Amino acid sequence: MKADFLSDLQALVRFPSISTDARYASGLRACATWLARHMQQLGLDGVRLFETARHPIVYAEKLVSRRRPTLLIYGHYDVQPTEPAAAWTVPPFAGLIRGNKLYGRGASDDKGQFFVHLKALELLLQTGQPLPLNVKILLEGEEEIGSPNLAEFVQAHRHRLRADWALLSDTNLLSAAQPALTYGLRGSLAAELTVTGPRAELHSGIFGGAVLNPLQALSTLLAALHDEAGRIAIPGFYDPVQPASVAERAYLQRYGPSDAQLRREAQVEQGWGEAGYSLYERTVLRPSLSITGLTGGYQGAGVQSIVPARASAKLSFRLAQGQNPHQVEEQLRRFLRRITPPQVQATLTAQLHAPPYTVPPQLPVMQAAAQAYAHGFGRAPVLQRSGGTIPVVSLFEQHLGIPTVLMGFGLPDDRKHGPDEFLYLPNFWRGIRTSLFFLRRLGQLTPYSAPLCSSSTATATPAKATA
Amino acid sequence: MKADFLSDLQALVRFPSISTDARYASGLRACATWLARHMQQLGLDGVRLFETARHPIVYAEKLVSRRRPTLLIYGHYDVQPTEPAAAWTVPPFAGLIRGNKLYGRGASDDKGQFFVHLKALELLLQTGQPLPLNVKILLEGEEEIGSPNLAEFVQAHRHRLRADWALLSDTNLLSAAQPALTYGLRGSLAAELTVTGPRAELHSGIFGGAVLNPLQALSTLLAALHDEAGRIAIPGFYDPVQPASVAERAYLQRYGPSDAQLRREAQVEQGWGEAGYSLYERTVLRPSLSITGLTGGYQGAGVQSIVPARASAKLSFRLAQGQNPHQVEEQLRRFLRRITPPQVQATLTAQLHAPPYTVPPQLPVMQAAAQAYAHGFGRAPVLQRSGGTIPVVSLFEQHLGIPTVLMGFGLPDDRKHGPDEFLYLPNFWRGIRTSLFFLRRLGQLTPYSAPLCSSSTATATPAKATA
Repeated sequence: MKADFLSDLQALVRFPSISTDARYASGLRACATWLARHMQQLGLDGVRLFETARHPIVYAEKLVSRRRPTLLIYGHYDVQPTEPAAAWTVPPFAGLIRGNKLYGRGASDDKGQFFVHLKALELLLQTGQPLPLNVKILLEGEEEIGSPNLAEFVQAHRHRLRADWALLSDTNLLSAAQPALTYGLRGSLAAELTVTGPRAELHSGIFGGAVLNPLQALSTLLAALHDEAGRIAIPGFYDPVQPASVAERAYLQRYGPSDAQLRREAQVEQGWGEAGYSLYERTVLRPSLSITGLTGGYQGAGVQSIVPARASAKLSFRLAQGQNPHQVEEQLRRFLRRITPPQVQATLTAQLHAPPYTVPPQLPVMQAAAQAYAHGFGRAPVLQRSGGTIPVVSLFEQHLGIPTVLMGFGLPDDRKHGPDEFLYLPNFWRGIRTSLFFLRRLGQLTPYSAPLCSSSTATATPAKATA
Repeated sequence: MKADFLSDLQALVRFPSISTDARYASGLRACATWLARHMQQLGLDGVRLFETARHPIVYAEKLVSRRRPTLLIYGHYDVQPTEPAAAWTVPPFAGLIRGNKLYGRGASDDKGQFFVHLKALELLLQTGQPLPLNVKILLEGEEEIGSPNLAEFVQAHRHRLRADWALLSDTNLLSAAQPALTYGLRGSLAAELTVTGPRAELHSGIFGGAVLNPLQALSTLLAALHDEAGRIAIPGFYDPVQPASVAERAYLQRYGPSDAQLRREAQVEQGWGEAGYSLYERTVLRPSLSITGLTGGYQGAGVQSIVPARASAKLSFRLAQGQNPHQVEEQLRRFLRRITPPQVQATLTAQLHAPPYTVPPQLPVMQAAAQAYAHGFGRAPVLQRSGGTIPVVSLFEQHLGIPTVLMGFGLPDDRKHGPDEFLYLPNFWRGIRTSLFFLRRLGQLTPYSAPLCSSSTATATPAKATA
C-alpha cells in the first residue's frame, strides 16, 4: 500500500501545474484530468471537471446518508512558479524522493497535503463499509493566483457544495513532531505599482539630472511605505487592527515559535519589524508589506546608460484581524497620490483582495480536529495563527455559511514557494492516520452538537497541549 | 559616389556589434574585420587588428611626412544593447533608410559619425595627391562597456599612436542645422549595488513582517541617495565641484538649449533636478545620478508570494569638473556603510571610472574645427558642453599628452542608446565636407602655431557664433 500511495503522489507532483504563468495551462489541465480519473478509481461519485475562465475545478463526492453530516474537502492542485530556477538542486517536477523527503514544487503546497485526505478516503472505501459521513471534494487550479474564478463557482454551486464544515490542509505544523491546529489567517492585498516617466528611454549622460528617473521615483515611493521604525507609513493603516487579548498573546508566546526559531527557519541572523511584538506576533497578529518583485531599466550584463521610461514593483500586504483589503487599497491609493512627484505617473493595479480569517477554537469540529491530530501524531496539537492567506475560507464563510478547519501537515521550513520545496514523508503517513480519525469522529458529530466535554483524549486547549 | 558611401554605411550598421553582451562577440569580430578590409581598400596603410581581452581594436594609418602634423582619429564600432526590443519600430540591425534617416543601433553612436572621416579620407586619397597631414585611425570595440582594455593598449602603443591631436566624433550638434563644438564632458562612475538578505526566498505570508526584505532595503538605500530637493545626498559629494564662471554660464544660457527645448527632446512635460540651475546646466555643469536598472524578486505575470533573497540596482553617476570618480566611489561606499540596516548586506561593484574633461576652446585646433563646421554646414558652430562621458579623451590626455577635438555630427533627438536610433543623413554629407576642410586646415597648422587671428572666417567665439 505504502509504495502505491507514494508513486501516486509522485505522479501528482510531476505535473508542472504553475498557475501564475499562462504557458503552463496544459500542465494544469493534465493534472486536473489525472486527479479526476484517480478519484474515480478510488470509488468516489459524481467526478467532474468544471471549466472556469482559466483552469478547471475538479469535483467529486460520496454521499452516504442525509442523516450524516457533510464535510467539504478543499485543496488546490496548482503550484507557485519555480523561479529562480538556478536555486533548485533537484528538478522541480521530477517527484524525487531522497531520504524521508519528497522534493518538488507543490509537494507540500498543496498537492501532498490534500492528497492525505484522498488516501484516507481510499482506505475507508477499501473496507467496503459505507463512509462515516458525506464528503464533497473540491480541487482548485487557481489558488496561487488568488482564486479569481472560485467565488463565482462557489456561489453558483452553493447547493451542490452545501456542507457542515470545510476542511483545508495548506498550513504548517509547529515542527515535524508537534502538530498544530491553525485558527487564524492574515488577509492579503496584492497589487502592482508602476511608475512611468519619459515616453521612451533617454541617454543618462545627455538627460541625467534634468529628468526625474522612474526607477528613482519608484524607489522613493517604496521607501516611503515604511517608516524608520519598520512600521507601515500609510496614514490610517493600523487604525482598524483589532488588538489581540492578553490571554491570546500569552498563549502564542508560550506555544508559538520563539524569535530564535523563526530566525533559524528564515535563515537570517537578525529579525526585523514592528517594535513591541515578537517575530511570531509580527507575522500573525500584525499586518506586513512585502515587495515581492521589482523591475525596471536595463537588467543585462554590464552597463546601459539610460534613464528608463518605466519601473514597477509587486506589493503584497498581509492584513491583520479587523483590516479590510479594499479599504487598505483605498488608503494606499490616497497616500500614493499625495507622495508621487508631478514629473511621473504612478499606477496601482490590485491583483488580490482577501480578508483576514479566524475560526473559534471552541467549535466542536475544532476539538475533533485536535483529537485527530493527537491520534495521528501521538501528541496533542497546539493552537496557532498563520501569517499566510487562504482566500477560499472567506468564500466558504460568505456563500456556504460554514467554518473551515485548517488541518495542515506542512513544515515551517519545507520551502513552500521557494527552491527545493519538499514534503516530509513521515507526516504524510501521520496525516493519513489523522484524517482517518477525523473523518470517523466527524461522523459522530452534528453541527448542532454541544461542545465536547474535555475527556482523557487530548484537546486543543492550552492546558492539555503540553501533554 | 553617394550611393556607394551609403551602402558602405548600411553594411557597417548591419553588424550586431553589441559589446555589453558576450553573446555578440562574433558580431563584433565580423564588424572589425570588415572595417579593416574597408580601410585597406581605401588605401590606408598598416591596417591591423589588435587583440584585447574581449573585442579587437582596428588600426590603420597614412603617414606622409615628418614635417606634417599628425591627427589620431578615434571611433568605436561597438554599440549599445537593443532592449527593450519591443519598443523598436524597425529592425535594429537592418540598416533601413527611410526618408533622410538611416535607422539602426549604432547608426549615430558611433558608426555613422566616425565613418564621416573615413569617407573624407577616401575622397582625399582618390585625388592621387598626398594627404595634407599624417593620420592614424584607432577604432575600438569596447566603448559602450567603458573601454576596459583601451588604457593598456594606448599606454603600450603610445609611440605608434603619437600625434598632435586626437579627433573624436561622438557628440551632438545643437540641432540639425546648427553645428556645435563640444569642449566639455562629464565624468562617470558606473556601479552595481546588490542587497542580500535571507539565504533563500521565503514565503511572504509566513515571514512577512519579521524579516527585512532586500527589495525594501534596496529601495530605501536608493531613495536615500537623493534629498527631497533633488540633490545627491552623499556627504561631501558636491564639495570638489568647480563652479562655472559667470561668463560661461551666460554663454551656455544664450547658446545652449532652453528648458523648453530639453523637455521637448526628452518628451517630458516637466523638468526635474537641482534648484538654481537651468535644465541644460543640470546636465552639463552639475553632476547627476541615474538608476539605470533595477531587479529583484518575481518578475513574471501575476503574483508570487515571496520575500526575495536579493535585489540589485545599476547606478550611473555623471561627474562635474573637479570631481574624481574614485573619490565619489569612496564617498558612496562610506555612505552606504552608514545607512545599510544590519539585517542585510549591501555590496557595491564599480564598473567604470572616467574623470570629467574640458578642452580649451582657445586652442588653434579648436578654431580650425570651428572653421571646418562653418564650411561644412554654412553656419558657425556654437560652443557646448555635453553631459555624456567619453573616457578615451582622458586616456589620450594622460598617455599621449594631446587634446581631443570633439567634432560631433549626432542630433540631440536621434535616440542614441534608445529604440529607433537613427543617423540624419544630410549631416552625414555635411560632416564629410566638414572633415575634408578640417583635415586640409590641420595640414597647415603645427601644434606650436600661435592662436589664429580671427579673420572673416567664422570662428567659435561667442560673438561670431551668431554670424
